[in-house]
Order: sequence, then C-alpha cells, then structure tokens
Amino acid sequence: MNTQFHITRPDRAIEPALRDKIENLTKPKGSLGQLEELALQVGLIQQTLEPALRHPVNVIYAADHGIADEGISKSPKEVTRQVVFNFLNGGAGICFLARQHGFEIKIVDSGVDYDFPPIPQLIDRKIRKGTRNYLYEPAMTEEELDLAFQYGAGIVSDCYREGCNVISFGEMGVANTATSSLWMTCLTGIPLIDCVGAGSGLDAEGVRHKYEVLKQAFGRYEGDRRPLAVARHFGGYEMVMAVAGMLRAAELKMVILVDGFIMTNCVLLASRLYPEMLEYCVFGHRGDEAGHKRLLTYLGVRPLLSLGLRLGEGSGAVCAYPILDSAVRMINEMHTFQQAAITKYF
Amino acid sequence: MNTQFHITRPDRAIEPALRDKIENLTKPKGSLGQLEELALQVGLIQQTLEPALRHPVNVIYAADHGIADEGISKSPKEVTRQVVFNFLNGGAGICFLARQHGFEIKIVDSGVDYDFPPIPQLIDRKIRKGTRNYLYEPAMTEEELDLAFQYGAGIVSDCYREGCNVISFGEMGVANTATSSLWMTCLTGIPLIDCVGAGSGLDAEGVRHKYEVLKQAFGRYEGDRRPLAVARHFGGYEMVMAVAGMLRAAELKMVILVDGFIMTNCVLLASRLYPEMLEYCVFGHRGDEAGHKRLLTYLGVRPLLSLGLRLGEGSGAVCAYPILDSAVRMINEMHTFQQAAITKYF
Repeated sequence: MNTQFHITRPDRAIEPALRDKIENLTKPKGSLGQLEELALQVGLIQQTLEPALRHPVNVIYAADHGIADEGISKSPKEVTRQVVFNFLNGGAGICFLARQHGFEIKIVDSGVDYDFPPIPQLIDRKIRKGTRNYLYEPAMTEEELDLAFQYGAGIVSDCYREGCNVISFGEMGVANTATSSLWMTCLTGIPLIDCVGAGSGLDAEGVRHKYEVLKQAFGRYEGDRRPLAVARHFGGYEMVMAVAGMLRAAELKMVILVDGFIMTNCVLLASRLYPEMLEYCVFGHRGDEAGHKRLLTYLGVRPLLSLGLRLGEGSGAVCAYPILDSAVRMINEMHTFQQAAITKYF
Repeated sequence: MNTQFHITRPDRAIEPALRDKIENLTKPKGSLGQLEELALQVGLIQQTLEPALRHPVNVIYAADHGIADEGISKSPKEVTRQVVFNFLNGGAGICFLARQHGFEIKIVDSGVDYDFPPIPQLIDRKIRKGTRNYLYEPAMTEEELDLAFQYGAGIVSDCYREGCNVISFGEMGVANTATSSLWMTCLTGIPLIDCVGAGSGLDAEGVRHKYEVLKQAFGRYEGDRRPLAVARHFGGYEMVMAVAGMLRAAELKMVILVDGFIMTNCVLLASRLYPEMLEYCVFGHRGDEAGHKRLLTYLGVRPLLSLGLRLGEGSGAVCAYPILDSAVRMINEMHTFQQAAITKYF
C-alpha cells in the first residue's frame, strides 16, 4: 500500500532554546506577533536555532471531475486543460507570484480530461481522463487511489532530492470545490449546506443547484466516513495526490504552506490519517469560499493572510511565503539585546 | 507657512480602462480579491495601465517625548537613542524586513534627547532634544511645528528626486503611543479610554496609570480640535514630520504604505488637513494596540495584514510591501483571456 507514511512530531527538546533566542531579539516581547510563532515552528521542524528556507516549490496537481457533467461549476470542463496551458505559458495567477517569490512550479497532469502532446514541463501522472461521476458511481477504483498516493508522494520526493525544504500545493480542476465540500461534510460532520460555496463564481441560483446535486450524491453514498473511503468515492485525483504529497512532505520534515479551501480539505483528510502532519503546516490564506473559514476554525488554525483570494493554484500559499521568509530572517538576522547594548524593555 | 500642500485626487478618467484590463486577466472575476483593488489604486495614482513600483524607501523619524517623564511607557527614554543605533547597525526589526524587500531606510533624528556624534547614515533634523511635557505646557512652539513640517516634507522630496515612488513611514519614540491616543481622541471624538493601549508592553496597572496621566493632560488642554493645534500641543516631532512627509508624498503622487497605530494617527491628522491624501494610502497592517482597529474602522479602511505586530519602525508597512508588489505584477504580467485562448469563465 502506498498510503503508509512514517510521520513524527518535531522533537520539543529544542523549544526552550528557540524561545530564548526569539525573546532576546531587540524588540518588545511578542511585538513581532505571528512572525515569532512562525520562527518557532520552523525552528522546531528543522531542529535548529538557525532555520533556512531552501528551493521553494509549488506543486500544482490538475485533474478533471466527472461530477462537472452535472453543471455545478461556473466554468466549463475545458477550462481545466486551458488553464494548464496557461500555467505552462507563464500567464496564470500563480506564475507571477512564483516568479516574485522564487518558487519553482511543478505542473502535474493528475487526470485531466484531455490528451496533451508531450510537453517537457508537464509532468505526466495521468491516472484517467477525469474521475467518474460520483452521483452514480465511485469516483475512482482502489487501484487508482493507491496509484494517486504513489504519484502524489513521488513528486514531493523529487522536490526533496532537488533541495526543497518548503513546499506548497495547488490544484486546478473544474468542480473541485464541490468535491471538497463533500470531503468536509463527511470528515467533520458539519452540515453540507455550510460546506458549499460559489466556487469560481456561481450566482445564488448556481450555488443552490450545486447544493442539490451534492445533497443527492451525499445521500446516495453508502460508504463509511473513513478518510480513504471518502477520498476514493468522491475523488479527485489531484486532491488525493495533494494529500499524499503533504504526507510525504511531513515525513521528510518539510514546511508545508497551505493554500485555500481545497487544499485545506486535503490537510483535513491527511491529518485524519496522520494527525502529526499538522505540525508541519503553515496556513497561508483564508479565502472567500463559504466553508473555508468554518473549516479553519474547525482545525483551530489562523492563516497568515486574508486577501479575498479564491483562485486556487496555490496562489494563497505562495502569496504568504514572504511572511514565512520574514520569520526566518527575523530569527537569523535581528540583533539581541546583548549585541545591541539596549536596555531590555520588557 | 510650511503646512501648505497642493494635493489632488487621481483623475478617474482612466478607471474604466484599468477595470477592463483587470477583468480580462485569466482568472475568475474578482478572484484575486484585494490584489485587484490595489492594482486599480496604484494604476489610478500613477495614471497608467502599467504601474510600476520604484526604489521603495522607509523613512523612520525618531524623537523623544517630554511626557515620557511621567513613567507611562514600559521602555525607559534612553531606548529611543539605543534603538536608533540598532537601526544604524542593521540589527533592528525593520532592518531585516527592508533588506528582504529591497527598501532603503532613511533614519531621521527628528528630536532625540541625545547628542549623536556625526554619523553619515543618520539624517540630522533635530528640532530639540525631545518635546516639552504636555502635562504642563505645549509640546512644541509654532516655529518648531513649522520647522517639523518643513523637515518632514523635505526628506520625502529627497526620496522622490532619488527615484522613489512608493514610500512608508515609521517612527521610534518612547511614549508616542500615548501621544497618538491624544491625537485620536481629539480628532475623532472617540473617548480617550478607547484610544489608550499597552504600547510596547505595559501591564494592566501600567495602562491604567498611562490613562490617568493622559486624562489629566487632555483635561488641561484648552486649545481647539483643529489638527495643527492638536499637533503642536501634544507633539511629537517625529509624528509631525511623518504627517508632513505623507502630505508631500501625496502631493508628489507617490504610493504611501501606512504602518500601525502611530502612523495611522498621522494619516488621520494629515487627512484632516487634506482629505485627498487618503487616496494615496495603502494600509499595511492592523496592529494589536488597543484603538488601532477602532481607528481603522473610523477611517473606513482595511489593512492588508493582521499579524499581531506592534513594533513600529514601519515594520507593518514594509512587511505588507510584497502584496502591493504582487498587485502590480498581476496587472503587468498575467495573460488575458484573449492571449491565453481560455473560455472566459465569469
């Protein structure tokens, strides 16, 4: 099985030394707020008083969803492959953010409903041309689920070998906010109605229709609420690969920058399998999608940004990267009270 | 008088073209949230569809406050000069942020209670070694107020000549949250108690004492609520220079990145003199200081970040810079639906 990982919590023995270092930097105690919390977290993950961020990568898994046939997204299905081309051409939202913050982007065809020509920058891990429509049948087979875990984790192993120790995950897949809503209701028990939102821009009538379709799909689901059963029944390939990627990243003690609604659902599912993985996660952005705020509250986390983004692609995670970088620079570059000969003012 | 500026609102004629450009970028409509609003604002300020940020500068005005003698700050007065040395040595919080985001820092001695030796990187605009104690007398004279306006604006003229079109302002001055609270209550009518907070780290007893002292000072103030009268009576030199700097920046059509509680009070006062200046302001950060949230609500603005910073120095503004930069990159670098041959999905 490819769903087995060996994830441990960071050793807390170094925590007092980290706190001591942070408290002796030349600032009123606690006055750098979340930067101080982040510096502690990264220090714990890396088990050092001098943490460093190296070779950041944003992995985008792209795939189609059979449920899109029910007309529950503002975007037609062909948009998935069109946006993949936009990634490849450097024109998408995530592209300028990645250039700005020095991220490599890895674009993975996890299961787009399109026959791409061979393209060097497109990593072919296509499992199938889109999941099956979960209104009528399970989105994927056991074998496909297992393969998605293998592929998703393998990409992260590659990143690690290439020197990456901080990673974010993004997705592209028309209808994947719908699928995320089902993961959320299944895994948290929060009523479906509170998990369904406008996605890429549905109006009220569109959201109502989306909810009706999902209610039907949810009602027909006869499986249990175990994470892997939920993942297999509803898909999608890109989301399962992201779950596996996150788990592999935690296993490799990488910092995981978490994007918006869909990726937060992937964290939810991943943390049901391995709760320890949460200690490697930094939540980048609270998006506008209904349900995201509620899910973040459920997880007890506070993202760094809240800029009203709802683009996906990893944009909210990459946009938050400079704050993580600030935290690491703080602990490495600020002078201590002793160095600066300043009266310790706290 | 040095308090005269010629500030005009950006011409709105270009707005439809800017909105059209932003809406044709390859993303669901509105899905880049505040980045889209920022791109519009910077486009309006610069009157172009291709805005650019050049040579960012963070000006730090430093000065002492006579009121510090009343023991209303956690930090002793000598901390002002000590922190100025920390700026000069590159060890302060603002220093690593400035290096990270490519900001030049200009450090201005606006009125520190210390005789600095000549230091090339320290800009000497000292008006006096600290303001007078406003519990007993006006903080500054009319002449000093006028000089502070001249000096504060002059620094920004220098930045502009050096190629800067985006500027933030920071401060260092023990007791300047106290002074800010008085500006706030005088100019907004919000009760003093709601304007007073912990500053650099007072406990509840310390905040109570600070409030009692400020209540006395406020009670004894016999002047009117006109902005210049308030500024003169309570000071401080660094805050008046920041007001003047902001007004000069607006006059020169620069983007103004606004820091925390103290700088937001400077915006409040500046905007009472010239309401048009608000259109040049981008609010960087909502700090933890009591009163800041209330003041931002009063001004009707929503800062980009809320990271629990309360360091001053311009740190909240500089920390927010990459988001402003993202907005500008978005409008310049993202491909349009036409370019990318994507079905317009909104």
